[in-house]
Amino acid sequence: MDVTGPGPLTNPTLELIARRSSTRTYDPAPLSGDERDAILHAALRAPTAGNMVLYSIIEVDEQATKDRLATLCDDQPFIAAAPWVLLFLADWQKWTDLFAASGVADIEADAPRTHVGHGDLMLACADAIIAAQTAVIAAESLGIGSCYIGDVIENGEQVAELLELPPHTFPAAMVCFGRPRKPRAPIGRYGRNLVHRDRYHRMTGAEMAEVARELGELHAPSGLPQGVTSYPQAVYRRKFASTFMAEMNRSAAWWIERWTRGER
Amino acid sequence: MDVTGPGPLTNPTLELIARRSSTRTYDPAPLSGDERDAILHAALRAPTAGNMVLYSIIEVDEQATKDRLATLCDDQPFIAAAPWVLLFLADWQKWTDLFAASGVADIEADAPRTHVGHGDLMLACADAIIAAQTAVIAAESLGIGSCYIGDVIENGEQVAELLELPPHTFPAAMVCFGRPRKPRAPIGRYGRNLVHRDRYHRMTGAEMAEVARELGELHAPSGLPQGVTSYPQAVYRRKFASTFMAEMNRSAAWWIERWTRGER
Repeated sequence: MDVTGPGPLTNPTLELIARRSSTRTYDPAPLSGDERDAILHAALRAPTAGNMVLYSIIEVDEQATKDRLATLCDDQPFIAAAPWVLLFLADWQKWTDLFAASGVADIEADAPRTHVGHGDLMLACADAIIAAQTAVIAAESLGIGSCYIGDVIENGEQVAELLELPPHTFPAAMVCFGRPRKPRAPIGRYGRNLVHRDRYHRMTGAEMAEVARELGELHAPSGLPQGVTSYPQAVYRRKFASTFMAEMNRSAAWWIERWTRGER
Repeated sequence: MDVTGPGPLTNPTLELIARRSSTRTYDPAPLSGDERDAILHAALRAPTAGNMVLYSIIEVDEQATKDRLATLCDDQPFIAAAPWVLLFLADWQKWTDLFAASGVADIEADAPRTHVGHGDLMLACADAIIAAQTAVIAAESLGIGSCYIGDVIENGEQVAELLELPPHTFPAAMVCFGRPRKPRAPIGRYGRNLVHRDRYHRMTGAEMAEVARELGELHAPSGLPQGVTSYPQAVYRRKFASTFMAEMNRSAAWWIERWTRGER
């Protein structure tokens, strides 16, 4: 599919989805109260598993907290300059607290379930990210740009302490919001072998060569970085084998272990 | 925040987000090719980490596969009756395959990184769910309803075999699409303590009582199920301590272990 060109149908929502790209340079003017509320309202209307709302949103307002997050999230100063920062937390803590307070022991013949597991985590992460992307699209409909910060998974111990996150929470997505200070370049996106029919199609060697060629043309039209001979090699070096991904993997394992272990 | 009422601003996108609720009863007419392509195009335009597109979409077309998924996903026959089913897979497999095929060993002084970790998984899940929710909103803009199937995390061994999923993939979200066969009731949503300021606010006993009251009024206006005395107790019994959540937790641990272990 040609993902860089326009789609076959159009309406205001499809248009804004097609033209959006991430915003990292912000008009410093704060968003209005109505804008913030409209974006939060949209996020909170997003679908959630069993209507349980398995997430919470932390609105990061204090400059000192933004500054610290900018450092902890792989040193990206633009985070500190974003007019509005929302953290979407996977959150079963509120429910386990509610269960304990509501006396579930009274309705249990056996010991009540207190362990929060990997499935609970993945379901809550889905809820949190569904809300985050709804906020992103709602913001875009108001002319407000956004940027996901995947690096919020890094340095878990310090992020948890900074934001006072209890054990059954996980920072599923952080998003910076603000009006773009300059026109955003439309982003190219490769479209090969992204949609499979009925089962997973693992690429053949010839297909992989085609994907590598398409990626190179899209993302490195003026040539590849020194020391690599293909775009996959560049991604390997800059992303997969990077220091920040090593930290993200270490830290994510810590978050997951903490979540499933519960209170110390 | 009053999440059940309207938000403070409006436009076509905010309106469709505010009014959407899940669709489980479908007009059996298939979606048109343009509708499918427009929804896929929107999904594939969604933001992804480092522009790496860390997901793949499986379009489930065969009736036998839909039938099997309906059984494996906690026995929900409406899945088999959905005109269109998309599985959004977190997918690092395509990249590790591309890395191997592109000869990353040639650019590595030491042994190339082959282990795919928990951070890679969480980042790829975010990508997959961001794409899924973009598809959901795009569909809604075309009058096409949708329903997330969180239960796709269950019965991992069988889902992986059915869809031939390689190790570095994870079923982050499955979504059924189709035109609603009957008008959808607007859904109520509680709004208390969902947005925190600067740090996580753990509810006090009085706040928990307020949340429990609001939840009961919204979701059990005509009374609670037998054997429970509060809405949190109902959620505990019907969700948290249910057989399907036990299976989801078992299976998610299996998926994560498989992902980080890699090829057997």
